[in-house]
Amino acid sequence: MEKGEEVRNRQVLLRDYVTGLVKETDMILSTAGSIRLKVPASSKAILVKNLYLSCDPYMRGRMTKLDCPSYIDSFLPGSAITGFGVSKVLDSDHPEFREGDLVGGMTGWEEYSLIQMPQFLFKIHHTDVPLSYYTGILGMPGMTAYFGFYEVCSPKKGEYVFISAALGAVGQLVGQFAKLMGCYVVGSAGTNKKVDLLKNKFGFDEAFNYKEEHDLDAALKRYFPEGIDIYFENVGGKMLDAVLLNMRLHGRISVCGLISQYNLEHLEGVHNLFCLISKRIRMEGFMVADYFHLYPKFMEFTLPLIREGKIVYVEDTTEGLESGPAALVGLFSGCNVGKQVVVVAKQ
Amino acid sequence: MEKGEEVRNRQVLLRDYVTGLVKETDMILSTAGSIRLKVPASSKAILVKNLYLSCDPYMRGRMTKLDCPSYIDSFLPGSAITGFGVSKVLDSDHPEFREGDLVGGMTGWEEYSLIQMPQFLFKIHHTDVPLSYYTGILGMPGMTAYFGFYEVCSPKKGEYVFISAALGAVGQLVGQFAKLMGCYVVGSAGTNKKVDLLKNKFGFDEAFNYKEEHDLDAALKRYFPEGIDIYFENVGGKMLDAVLLNMRLHGRISVCGLISQYNLEHLEGVHNLFCLISKRIRMEGFMVADYFHLYPKFMEFTLPLIREGKIVYVEDTTEGLESGPAALVGLFSGCNVGKQVVVVAKQ
Repeated sequence: MEKGEEVRNRQVLLRDYVTGLVKETDMILSTAGSIRLKVPASSKAILVKNLYLSCDPYMRGRMTKLDCPSYIDSFLPGSAITGFGVSKVLDSDHPEFREGDLVGGMTGWEEYSLIQMPQFLFKIHHTDVPLSYYTGILGMPGMTAYFGFYEVCSPKKGEYVFISAALGAVGQLVGQFAKLMGCYVVGSAGTNKKVDLLKNKFGFDEAFNYKEEHDLDAALKRYFPEGIDIYFENVGGKMLDAVLLNMRLHGRISVCGLISQYNLEHLEGVHNLFCLISKRIRMEGFMVADYFHLYPKFMEFTLPLIREGKIVYVEDTTEGLESGPAALVGLFSGCNVGKQVVVVAKQ
Repeated sequence: MEKGEEVRNRQVLLRDYVTGLVKETDMILSTAGSIRLKVPASSKAILVKNLYLSCDPYMRGRMTKLDCPSYIDSFLPGSAITGFGVSKVLDSDHPEFREGDLVGGMTGWEEYSLIQMPQFLFKIHHTDVPLSYYTGILGMPGMTAYFGFYEVCSPKKGEYVFISAALGAVGQLVGQFAKLMGCYVVGSAGTNKKVDLLKNKFGFDEAFNYKEEHDLDAALKRYFPEGIDIYFENVGGKMLDAVLLNMRLHGRISVCGLISQYNLEHLEGVHNLFCLISKRIRMEGFMVADYFHLYPKFMEFTLPLIREGKIVYVEDTTEGLESGPAALVGLFSGCNVGKQVVVVAKQ
């Protein structure tokens, strides 16, 4: 294809705002659209071909009509959804980008995207690691794990660390960061296969299948007879209530996500907040966007760990934009084993 | 009476562990006991006459059979309850205390107490302020307000501060500390009389009667159109849920108490914890006992403010040990206007 050519541009559109459990049919694969592979003059925009798209739990929130300006905008029904991805620049009117550059950051769930504000993208300089890694371990989820653990949890060597949704894109990295620091690390996940991976591939000290535990409090007491210093919270609800009962004095809970709640029409209540007082717990929410300016610091730490094989990373990839809706919906029933990526094109 | 004399020692006993709403009849005034006004030789103990007893919400927790070693022991059914108080030393076998000393700290709800570990008491050196102040503004509640606000809330000039149970022993001081710092301060309380005091005596910018608000979220939006930077949490439950919706980015919630929950058999759930993430809120529990070693620093700050009239303090006193159970129970229905003190004896 040539620059300026008009091509088909398949897109994943949001049908309408979603209530309750998100379904594949809440999204539509549209084949009607086309795009001209040229950036309008003086637009400061870039035109990219999307290669890898990231499926992340926070995207569920954007499918609801939100009134939460501090967080993130809702998707627009009838328009392509957006998310983090890896893309290749086909044309640029922006001085910092040129044809052939590889970029990471927010893009559309479509084959090609015109990005009006490319200054929020980062350029990919290191291609000796798989490009898809920039949707995960070297992208937003990786930074979430890194800053959420090191900055928010204030970890110390030897501390007891618990991670829920531990095989997710973020959890698997938090656990490995905690092990590198000399912590005792236990993770929970929703299948025995994931539990096995956590223990035997990711080096967690212990892991358990929360779906097989009738009493989460008892399960945590089994794995943490002396209690939990740090809880990296990805799920919320009943797990948080059980964790609160098992925290140690001056424990820290970094609240990264509450995936158990995202598809509920009526949120579960958390009942054991009194433990915050009796155990002097600090519970702190964070958003990785606040740390995006520290991307170089994060890369300097993480890239060598990958290259030296000191950190393991597992992806779950599906092929084709058309596989996107099922992959995204699958996050919420825990279908993915590791970071969920949609491969739109390989180059 | 003479040293060594055996005298009547009336006591307030806990009848049995309490479930649900505490009632006066959960305590018994016993007139059967007596005590010899002399410390056993080589005991390192002291014997005190109790003057002022402090009624504090945390005492409700001690009436329940707790299994929370990090917090505090339960009271023993059939024994005198204990709490903070101001007492006069009648006899001492401890080198740091002598007859006639005035002391503050944990004592029994009885006329006289034999205190086995007096090293945890503090000596009262300044008697130009009312002695009863050492159960409140110059005692545990004062330190709770001081360290809970300055250490846990990380306040900055001009910030928006909300305080629940704002006329309580702690709340009234937090509000004044916040005003001294140049914050905008709003308090909630449960009667219009209290609201009036907060605005017209304590210098709060605004106050409201939460019992007259059907929609706490709407009430908070009215008083904080730009949101809340700091919430000093004394009540929990529905108020916390409404506050979470109204917090600003990077807000702080210092969790001091959850009085709305102390008499419930089934704790209310808190549903809006997602706001911790979207607004990057730090929510932190604390216990004043962790700061007791900093008492001199606290006194250095607070005593001059009282002497110079820069801080107002309101007590609600009842006379006689026999009035204690009703005064203590009254805390939970908000009967007290200001710090609730039981006067056992004036000297």
